[in-house]
Amino acid sequence: MRFIKEIRDGEQIQGIYLCKQKTSAVTKNGKPYENVILQDKTGSIDCKIWDVKSAGIEDFDALDYIDIVADASIFNGAMQLSIKRARVAGEGEFDPADYLPVSSKDINEMYNELLKYINSVSNRYLKRLLEFFFVHDEKLVKAFKSTSAAKSVHHGFVGGLLEHTLSVTGTCDYIASKYPIIKRDLLITAAICHDIGKTKELSAFPVNDYTDEGNLLGHIVMGYEMVKDYSKKQDDFPEGLLNELLHCILSHHGELEFGSPKKPAIAEAIALSFADNADAKLETMREALEAGDAAGKSGWLGFNRYLDSNIRKTMG
Amino acid sequence: MRFIKEIRDGEQIQGIYLCKQKTSAVTKNGKPYENVILQDKTGSIDCKIWDVKSAGIEDFDALDYIDIVADASIFNGAMQLSIKRARVAGEGEFDPADYLPVSSKDINEMYNELLKYINSVSNRYLKRLLEFFFVHDEKLVKAFKSTSAAKSVHHGFVGGLLEHTLSVTGTCDYIASKYPIIKRDLLITAAICHDIGKTKELSAFPVNDYTDEGNLLGHIVMGYEMVKDYSKKQDDFPEGLLNELLHCILSHHGELEFGSPKKPAIAEAIALSFADNADAKLETMREALEAGDAAGKSGWLGFNRYLDSNIRKTMG
Amino acid sequence: MRFIKEIRDGEQIQGIYLCKQKTSAVTKNGKPYENVILQDKTGSIDCKIWDVKSAGIEDFDALDYIDIVADASIFNGAMQLSIKRARVAGEGEFDPADYLPVSSKDINEMYNELLKYINSVSNRYLKRLLEFFFVHDEKLVKAFKSTSAAKSVHHGFVGGLLEHTLSVTGTCDYIASKYPIIKRDLLITAAICHDIGKTKELSAFPVNDYTDEGNLLGHIVMGYEMVKDYSKKQDDFPEGLLNELLHCILSHHGELEFGSPKKPAIAEAIALSFADNADAKLETMREALEAGDAAGKSGWLGFNRYLDSNIRKTMG
Amino acid sequence: MRFIKEIRDGEQIQGIYLCKQKTSAVTKNGKPYENVILQDKTGSIDCKIWDVKSAGIEDFDALDYIDIVADASIFNGAMQLSIKRARVAGEGEFDPADYLPVSSKDINEMYNELLKYINSVSNRYLKRLLEFFFVHDEKLVKAFKSTSAAKSVHHGFVGGLLEHTLSVTGTCDYIASKYPIIKRDLLITAAICHDIGKTKELSAFPVNDYTDEGNLLGHIVMGYEMVKDYSKKQDDFPEGLLNELLHCILSHHGELEFGSPKKPAIAEAIALSFADNADAKLETMREALEAGDAAGKSGWLGFNRYLDSNIRKTMG
Amino acid sequence: MRFIKEIRDGEQIQGIYLCKQKTSAVTKNGKPYENVILQDKTGSIDCKIWDVKSAGIEDFDALDYIDIVADASIFNGAMQLSIKRARVAGEGEFDPADYLPVSSKDINEMYNELLKYINSVSNRYLKRLLEFFFVHDEKLVKAFKSTSAAKSVHHGFVGGLLEHTLSVTGTCDYIASKYPIIKRDLLITAAICHDIGKTKELSAFPVNDYTDEGNLLGHIVMGYEMVKDYSKKQDDFPEGLLNELLHCILSHHGELEFGSPKKPAIAEAIALSFADNADAKLETMREALEAGDAAGKSGWLGFNRYLDSNIRKTMG
Amino acid sequence: MRFIKEIRDGEQIQGIYLCKQKTSAVTKNGKPYENVILQDKTGSIDCKIWDVKSAGIEDFDALDYIDIVADASIFNGAMQLSIKRARVAGEGEFDPADYLPVSSKDINEMYNELLKYINSVSNRYLKRLLEFFFVHDEKLVKAFKSTSAAKSVHHGFVGGLLEHTLSVTGTCDYIASKYPIIKRDLLITAAICHDIGKTKELSAFPVNDYTDEGNLLGHIVMGYEMVKDYSKKQDDFPEGLLNELLHCILSHHGELEFGSPKKPAIAEAIALSFADNADAKLETMREALEAGDAAGKSGWLGFNRYLDSNIRKTMG
Repeated sequence: MRFIKEIRDGEQIQGIYLCKQKTSAVTKNGKPYENVILQDKTGSIDCKIWDVKSAGIEDFDALDYIDIVADASIFNGAMQLSIKRARVAGEGEFDPADYLPVSSKDINEMYNELLKYINSVSNRYLKRLLEFFFVHDEKLVKAFKSTSAAKSVHHGFVGGLLEHTLSVTGTCDYIASKYPIIKRDLLITAAICHDIGKTKELSAFPVNDYTDEGNLLGHIVMGYEMVKDYSKKQDDFPEGLLNELLHCILSHHGELEFGSPKKPAIAEAIALSFADNADAKLETMREALEAGDAAGKSGWLGFNRYLDSNIRKTMG
Repeated sequence: MRFIKEIRDGEQIQGIYLCKQKTSAVTKNGKPYENVILQDKTGSIDCKIWDVKSAGIEDFDALDYIDIVADASIFNGAMQLSIKRARVAGEGEFDPADYLPVSSKDINEMYNELLKYINSVSNRYLKRLLEFFFVHDEKLVKAFKSTSAAKSVHHGFVGGLLEHTLSVTGTCDYIASKYPIIKRDLLITAAICHDIGKTKELSAFPVNDYTDEGNLLGHIVMGYEMVKDYSKKQDDFPEGLLNELLHCILSHHGELEFGSPKKPAIAEAIALSFADNADAKLETMREALEAGDAAGKSGWLGFNRYLDSNIRKTMG
Repeated sequence: MRFIKEIRDGEQIQGIYLCKQKTSAVTKNGKPYENVILQDKTGSIDCKIWDVKSAGIEDFDALDYIDIVADASIFNGAMQLSIKRARVAGEGEFDPADYLPVSSKDINEMYNELLKYINSVSNRYLKRLLEFFFVHDEKLVKAFKSTSAAKSVHHGFVGGLLEHTLSVTGTCDYIASKYPIIKRDLLITAAICHDIGKTKELSAFPVNDYTDEGNLLGHIVMGYEMVKDYSKKQDDFPEGLLNELLHCILSHHGELEFGSPKKPAIAEAIALSFADNADAKLETMREALEAGDAAGKSGWLGFNRYLDSNIRKTMG
Repeated sequence: MRFIKEIRDGEQIQGIYLCKQKTSAVTKNGKPYENVILQDKTGSIDCKIWDVKSAGIEDFDALDYIDIVADASIFNGAMQLSIKRARVAGEGEFDPADYLPVSSKDINEMYNELLKYINSVSNRYLKRLLEFFFVHDEKLVKAFKSTSAAKSVHHGFVGGLLEHTLSVTGTCDYIASKYPIIKRDLLITAAICHDIGKTKELSAFPVNDYTDEGNLLGHIVMGYEMVKDYSKKQDDFPEGLLNELLHCILSHHGELEFGSPKKPAIAEAIALSFADNADAKLETMREALEAGDAAGKSGWLGFNRYLDSNIRKTMG
Repeated sequence: MRFIKEIRDGEQIQGIYLCKQKTSAVTKNGKPYENVILQDKTGSIDCKIWDVKSAGIEDFDALDYIDIVADASIFNGAMQLSIKRARVAGEGEFDPADYLPVSSKDINEMYNELLKYINSVSNRYLKRLLEFFFVHDEKLVKAFKSTSAAKSVHHGFVGGLLEHTLSVTGTCDYIASKYPIIKRDLLITAAICHDIGKTKELSAFPVNDYTDEGNLLGHIVMGYEMVKDYSKKQDDFPEGLLNELLHCILSHHGELEFGSPKKPAIAEAIALSFADNADAKLETMREALEAGDAAGKSGWLGFNRYLDSNIRKTMG
Repeated sequence: MRFIKEIRDGEQIQGIYLCKQKTSAVTKNGKPYENVILQDKTGSIDCKIWDVKSAGIEDFDALDYIDIVADASIFNGAMQLSIKRARVAGEGEFDPADYLPVSSKDINEMYNELLKYINSVSNRYLKRLLEFFFVHDEKLVKAFKSTSAAKSVHHGFVGGLLEHTLSVTGTCDYIASKYPIIKRDLLITAAICHDIGKTKELSAFPVNDYTDEGNLLGHIVMGYEMVKDYSKKQDDFPEGLLNELLHCILSHHGELEFGSPKKPAIAEAIALSFADNADAKLETMREALEAGDAAGKSGWLGFNRYLDSNIRKTMG
């Protein structure tokens, strides 16, 4: 298979790609054609099917994996494919991992690590809550393992949410072991749950975009609600503990202007907001440096909006 | 009855007052005494019971109405009562309205007006939701009629939440009649529900202070949750409509830095945030001018923090 | 007539358009040609006259309506006309309404509604002031009816200032009827006058751009001055009332950082700033949704700078 | 005469003071008495007249200079006078300069310097404008010579406005001589006129407080209007020049959030805003250091709100 | 010894206290007396020596430990001592730890832990630098062990700088072990050095206030300079490494508005700013909760300026 | 010589240009070529050497002055040169002043003026310091005369730092002569040294970009350090004076958010920050107006980011 970013002007391409989008259009002369966007894990590419009714062009839809023959050429400064033949590929013909950006860490290993943290929680109400979501709710577990942690900024890949959650939980574990005012069970539980709403805020890959609900409500409030809902079905979840956990979720962005409706008011909420923010910033830096390396840049990489600074790799 | 703000140095007072707070203490010489705060609608006053075991001092608790005999004197520049006799007053002996700040408007009339707005909603899902909360849930109705809209800033009196909600709803009705892009049913429902969480954020009078839950979670999220919870029990509440209603509640403070986790993204949310903000500001102005009049001030009243300006009455 | 946004590559066009701008230039080979911008209510288009001295090209100037024959072609990704023939069109040959964006409401009806509000003012000083500007000053009346309320953001069309003013006045009337602390005559007068300076800040259509004076001084101060000037010619305009009216005009943007030199300090100024801001925001939303519809977009429309949020149409 | 800040507990005082305020009150026992505030240039002091009908107490009003006999004592930690005798002093009995804070520079000398700057302006329109206000308008000249430049922050003394204006003009003269893009006549004129509105924003000494008009409109807009008014009476004042001058006045605070409705858009406006701001800051520093010296403080003087920093004298 | 916060009205006190300040004054009747402030680790108290020439009053100075006999009484609502006898105490008579707020952790144990971190640095340039400051420079070691980390906000006690530095270093060690993009040697070194300038910004206990140099330059720049100075004396300190280390020190406050002249631009600088900020916030929380407990408060403790939120203890 | 901005499509060019950058690349067909950027004082231009091994193409490097023969053509809307012949030019063949933007003032005359200011300083410690840097340190003098004051914003030309420093010093001299609280020697010295760090923050022309050290540390701290370093080598530089001078350098940007780690706390620091800011703003305006004139624009020039306003030339 030829990866998209390696396609060159003038080549004829044959391979299987994921169809991200497909729309019909009409040329100025009234002839119908199709606009198609294909993607693999190295990027995406605009394609045209000029001869829609050709025998070689079978029917396919967005999110199908399609096997194509196409001619590459540069148009308006960007590479474009003219698709000559297309058919839907069968399940065994391709490896989905080639088509989506994916965590560099093993997802099942990360999940097992998460389970260890859950097992380490002593408080039975909190432990039961964590098991409810992260062990027994299979649909959630599946979503949690595959969702990204963001559309673009950082951890924008399959497994990104799990990787970020695990990292934040680890940092919180460290903080809990170090600062006696921290109640560990509360902080670990808050860390594991803090971005749980992202499983609903972002749609699954390959779309990985904000859902309508996600745009209107946001993952902070959506995660709050998932936890609150669970608690209502329990007879005995201690109310004070519940409110502290919910407060940690609501305040984890640290500042009102970052979308938290409450500022951190208890020690665990302060700790969580730092662990979350530090992981987001350091992963953003890692991805920016990786992209810089990939682009063959050395030295200063220019202004990074999320980090609000010109950045560079440490030479040290 | 002698209102608290009329008590003068050297007087002996006899009357019934609401006990807001009562705590035990010990003098430097080791003698036990009681600190008591009494209030009526004109204010509150510090009291001491120096002779705790006196026959005239019967047992009572915070939030009891007590009938006292006491001596008034100025201590450290503030009026103080030394309570000589005290007993819990019976229900018919006093009028609770004398003890709490209360809306100048008739609460039942305002409630009937609210019902009219509810009846005017055509969409059956929204109407049923409003009836669920504001007609059928008696406990909520009672709380909604008596809660204040704030601890202090504005509408800080019995019936304040109802008065504010009604005013905001009225303004929204006006806006809906005027701007065709507004969907009236959605906006009216959002207006009526926007501060519903305050019934839980603030404790009942005479305490009228933030509850623990209120401090940790805030009325925006608490109100969101009440509406979302209701919807889950319905088989058929349209999801898109629900999310738009919830979005209006979440975004009604208009800006992230005012505690809304989302900025208004649809026309009704914009309209609601203006109606809410305008009512809060104009009522703050009304109360400030009233207080200025009461204090005999004319002209400029000095800097008002909530309005962020030096203010004065219009002479016109 | 072929509207500009419907012109297609390769067509030959014949029709009357408004000449917005015309400048002479020289090709790299030293040959003179003309750059012309034509507009109608659907947009504007770059044109060239390569053969300036051709018999078919009659003399014309910016702001003339000209009848052309031209060839359309795409250049650098944008449609362009090469004008072959051009002559100034006579008055009856075209309908000016086809050439300028215009309010969807009838301008004379809106003006009559404005007169009703003026008639409803009881205070004789304020009424006389309103009549002076909006009844007796014919030049101002004409400008007021045709000016836009902004170069681009919102109400950027013929009649936009009148439409916006009327809407703000209506909302103020509603607020005055509802909040007893408001002095209605003052608020209605302030609402009608609040943007009067825009008749000088913006030049008339089709230019609709900031004047030099407008850029240097701004409509807030210019409107202030018009009212103050009037008052000086009256023997008896009450000074306190005048200053309150002027204060409302100066503070109507609500915040210093939005260009008001004073924050609202009286109730009417607070009310006006809300009515103005709400109308501007809701009209911006209306225009954005309309543009979205026109572009065939559904769902989220992306970030709107003025509303400072990603926006979408209410589905409700 | 004993200056107010030198009065000690237990002394009997005899002297002439300026009555800043006088109000009637009633003791808790129903006896009428008078609250009086007296001032001299060293400060002000609370006084009581307990025996209002005493023969020794003659009638007097606020802003009278009164000759008193009184007993000084400390009450609630502050010095207070009990007035035993009082009569209105005659004109020759006192020197007004003892009663008001006054510029350390000679007012007439400063005025003559101002005239020199006026004479140095070549442009006949600008020169005539300056002469109109600062030579021919005797009432304005008188006010301009005596008004302060602020109620409190800086230059809060008789002659303060003249001193500040002269200093800003001098700095502008320097800038004009140095930066060729600056048009000197415009900048000098703008500098001399920039705070002319303060003659109306602040009432005359000894009141030296914001007038109602001043609070509602502010000196920036009031000064703008004075200049604009003048121009209307001239047949031939060049419009572009006028608007640039007015722009300089409107934008002289440099930022919208400091109350300028426009940001500086031409070089002269930038220059003026710096000259104004630098003089205000350096005079604030001078006054703070002088007050520190007077209070016998050495080293760091604590946080100065206007300078937004902890400050100290240069030892150098 | 009777601790200051246990002194009661009417008691006669005998004990040794640290004299924080001593100034001479004169009563209104011209009699000389002394104002003295004494302190121990529980607080400070105002004292007077009315009979300065009494035989029992020996000569002493600020910062002496003095043995006194004194009468306690309440004056203006605050406890005050009238000192009857006073003499300078000898070294063995008191334990300095009773007179200063001190870290709850053992200072030498903390120092040993710091040395372990230093030993764990592999890079020889960085290790040598750390040994230069924290092993070989005895004067610095002594200061570093005893200085506080702040005048008041957090860690305002003997050993506070060491405790804070160790905690930040530990967190950085954790981050380095977790994020592969981090160069551990650089981050550990930066963590240990980040507040080294505080040894000069704050004067030693019991004064513990900003030095003149500290106020003018600040610990960020002062620490930068100490490290840069060291490097100049080395022949071979790698320049890139040095600049990255200095950058970490300069940017450790994370934002320009918090006094860092540069925003973090490399991963280690980001990590350090989080570790520093998190430790400062969590220690502030710990101290606030401890103070709340000491004051017998339960529930919400009110608004904490540094944490910018109303805070409370976790009940969990 | 044909200046770059005068090159036209289709021309063949012969002339000497400065090579700013040179990199090797490979075409899609695998053929090696060279990307070259040439510059003169009128701009820069992209060039290609397609036939790298041609006999006419001699070896050259970035920063060489090369004599070329080339064909000009427009590619993707921008002018491009295809270089046919190239050789390194000898020293006498060109005038470097043709290749770099350069101050319009004579550099040696400006330097002499600077020396006069240095001579006017009376304090021997400060004078010796100034002479050390600006007279005796030849390398620094050379750098100081040629460095720009910024990469782009203002004074971005050879001699810019000297021109800016001299201008700021002149303004400070004026302020010192006018405000008695200012200590002139301190202020003049601070003015001359305030941007001394820019000699290291920016690399020499023609690169004129931030150095790695400059990016990491910034000119404020780098200049601080140069002065502090000098002082350490003096036996007797008064410490208080030194700290005041260093404080002026550190705080000269006036606000923390502009990168000063300290706000101005003494009068000289306030004065310096105004003089610096005013010169930067007025020179920015001058350059923007000059560019506007050059581009043939009249009237409003659009929004200038550094001045944060739409700007225009004064017509006066």
